[in-house]
Amino acid sequence: MARIVMKFGGTSMAGIERIRNVAGRVKREAEAGNQVAVVVSAMAGETDRLVQLCREAAPLYDPREYDVVVASGEQVTAGLLAMTLQGMGLNARSYMGWQLPIRASGHAAALIEGIDVAVLERVFDDDGIAVIPGFQGVTSDGAVATLGRGGSDTSAVALAAAMKADRCDIYTDVDGVYTTDPRIVPKAKKLDFVTYEEMLELASVGAKVLQTRSVGLAMRTKMPVQVLSSFEDRPGTLIADEAAIEGQIMERNVITGIAHDRNEALITLVDLPDTPGTVAAIFGPLAKANINVDMIVQSVRQAGEASDLTFTVPNASLAQAVAELEKAKGKIGFKEIITNMEIAKVSAVGVGMRSNAGIAAQMFEALAERRINILAITTSEIKVSVLIPEEYTELAVRVLHSAFGLDAEADSAGAAA
Amino acid sequence: MARIVMKFGGTSMAGIERIRNVAGRVKREAEAGNQVAVVVSAMAGETDRLVQLCREAAPLYDPREYDVVVASGEQVTAGLLAMTLQGMGLNARSYMGWQLPIRASGHAAALIEGIDVAVLERVFDDDGIAVIPGFQGVTSDGAVATLGRGGSDTSAVALAAAMKADRCDIYTDVDGVYTTDPRIVPKAKKLDFVTYEEMLELASVGAKVLQTRSVGLAMRTKMPVQVLSSFEDRPGTLIADEAAIEGQIMERNVITGIAHDRNEALITLVDLPDTPGTVAAIFGPLAKANINVDMIVQSVRQAGEASDLTFTVPNASLAQAVAELEKAKGKIGFKEIITNMEIAKVSAVGVGMRSNAGIAAQMFEALAERRINILAITTSEIKVSVLIPEEYTELAVRVLHSAFGLDAEADSAGAAA
Repeated sequence: MARIVMKFGGTSMAGIERIRNVAGRVKREAEAGNQVAVVVSAMAGETDRLVQLCREAAPLYDPREYDVVVASGEQVTAGLLAMTLQGMGLNARSYMGWQLPIRASGHAAALIEGIDVAVLERVFDDDGIAVIPGFQGVTSDGAVATLGRGGSDTSAVALAAAMKADRCDIYTDVDGVYTTDPRIVPKAKKLDFVTYEEMLELASVGAKVLQTRSVGLAMRTKMPVQVLSSFEDRPGTLIADEAAIEGQIMERNVITGIAHDRNEALITLVDLPDTPGTVAAIFGPLAKANINVDMIVQSVRQAGEASDLTFTVPNASLAQAVAELEKAKGKIGFKEIITNMEIAKVSAVGVGMRSNAGIAAQMFEALAERRINILAITTSEIKVSVLIPEEYTELAVRVLHSAFGLDAEADSAGAAA
Repeated sequence: MARIVMKFGGTSMAGIERIRNVAGRVKREAEAGNQVAVVVSAMAGETDRLVQLCREAAPLYDPREYDVVVASGEQVTAGLLAMTLQGMGLNARSYMGWQLPIRASGHAAALIEGIDVAVLERVFDDDGIAVIPGFQGVTSDGAVATLGRGGSDTSAVALAAAMKADRCDIYTDVDGVYTTDPRIVPKAKKLDFVTYEEMLELASVGAKVLQTRSVGLAMRTKMPVQVLSSFEDRPGTLIADEAAIEGQIMERNVITGIAHDRNEALITLVDLPDTPGTVAAIFGPLAKANINVDMIVQSVRQAGEASDLTFTVPNASLAQAVAELEKAKGKIGFKEIITNMEIAKVSAVGVGMRSNAGIAAQMFEALAERRINILAITTSEIKVSVLIPEEYTELAVRVLHSAFGLDAEADSAGAAA
């Protein structure tokens, strides 16, 4: 007997037929003797619809009332799944965020502060199944709170941690985490295991299987998370810490996956004076405006001479960043701003990198062979990222996927494509 | 300054443009210095959609989970209206049934047990506006409860009574209560006043402006209810007790309105034995099966001889009623069952009837003149109902509307039509 959380995303809950399919999976786990709590998303498209209504109602809507509106999508699917499970003869009931309660602080992007499990323990003692709407909680003053888009993943992991579950299974419309985007590389392989750290790097640079926040929470609480398909009966990908998957790590590739991200824009400040305080004058205002600066490259010429500074910001923040910099132009002292949105970041990720020098060199070599120009480089302990012209994105991902030995054999490629 | 409840139905809340219109009306009342609580329905069609989802999920759905699902429609409109009001610069907030709380018992057709107004009093002290989803409450064990279709009217009246409001304004897609259905009689007039008793008779025999339950509650709590249009700026109909509208009653017609109802079916049991216990043997099983028997006519011939018994049941219960009677045939002893769904009930309603003998006679005479056959008659203190062949419904309604002097003058007829 295990204690598990099963989480189903919006595509899995889109319509009664799919909810019935979900109920079948829950039934199987319950009848295998497991204690099951189910976390559900709203039907695919429903949260978008509700958000759109809020925007139309008031462009600067109150986040508190926004939460009242958008939390309703998960309320509907939780009730529907509970009654479907009952119709299959199971002892199931829904519990809203305010009923457990799932204590949260803030609105629209609330943080989970804690989950009371007394109700759940009674449900399990009674051989029951609890169905819990994801994405929602209740504040200390009794208001509905929601966790931000994709928050149901975080709900599931937080619930699993609170109820000391053996694992948290995230059912979605893909069957796991891949070595890279299979739409770009048909030979991409599904990974059996991935560490939390790798998953964080893969998610934040473009792999959208899980909300990044939920991976961070799983890492902190050491909760093993399994990503698997709602629609197929195949093993998924287990996300856990290195220790938990130690037996397998011997056979793992040095590089686990290749990620890419087209959502960055490049800013170059031309002819900066070489005086102390220039860098602070640049990044201070951007930080104040909540603009996330990622890669930074400074080309210093001779001491005392002017130099250029290049860095990236999210596409969506480019206009605001330029405005902030123009405002501070007198203080910074640059001559010109050049911007470029036609760039992409491609990253090689893998915990094996720690014990393997030369990964960066191998990467630059593979790209140089195809004459792909590298605009900037950043590295972390388990990741090397390069900035390249956007038109080379797919080529670069394919080249690196091959170069690091990630391409699937011919027979398994069919399944992955 | 007055303390008022404003209730808006599904047509009034159908989409952001209409919600903005509703917000404008709320704003006007608030800026006139009134203390306002707003009760809202789900967007038109939304509750039907949610009920349909429940039916598809599980034909015999759990009423408790049904309530979780269907209560979401009002949650959405309450949040949207609150943020729209805020966008107009007003201090508004939504309060769900479980937040006030609105205490209720039962599921799917729950009864309101009480409403705590402490939160509302604080809102009013703070010059705030409370937006409350209709149709929902919370049970003593913390589950969501809904009041049954049309329940938002009852929510509004109960809330008005609890907060000792001066009146409860029900905004809907018609501009008041009419002397009869304007689709049948273009000369139907909007009534300025109608008593609770008249409204109950008019509602239960076919006028669908207000949920019958809400009228009963308004009568018991002596809450003046005003029915008026969300879309036009015209006075509506005030529903109150006779004392409250005494000044006007002098000028009122003896008959207030003509109602009709096509949802009844006639059952005739042929050749019943004239023995004690026969009537009990007939109506006992029907009562047990929760079948509502309305009009009853017994034609007694000579003492000791067999007679026929005729009565009506709702159309929807006819098949079940016949089955129950066939089961009890041996005990009852009738020879044959004849059924007829092609009937209609037409009623003249008015508190003035109490002091005016001869209304029934006047009614029969008017119908006889047009050769409309009367199949059965029932009377109450303020109502005379006749059962007629269905094909004569419109003619009978028009004839009675004229006979009792209800037709509008030419100039006001245009507005009513």
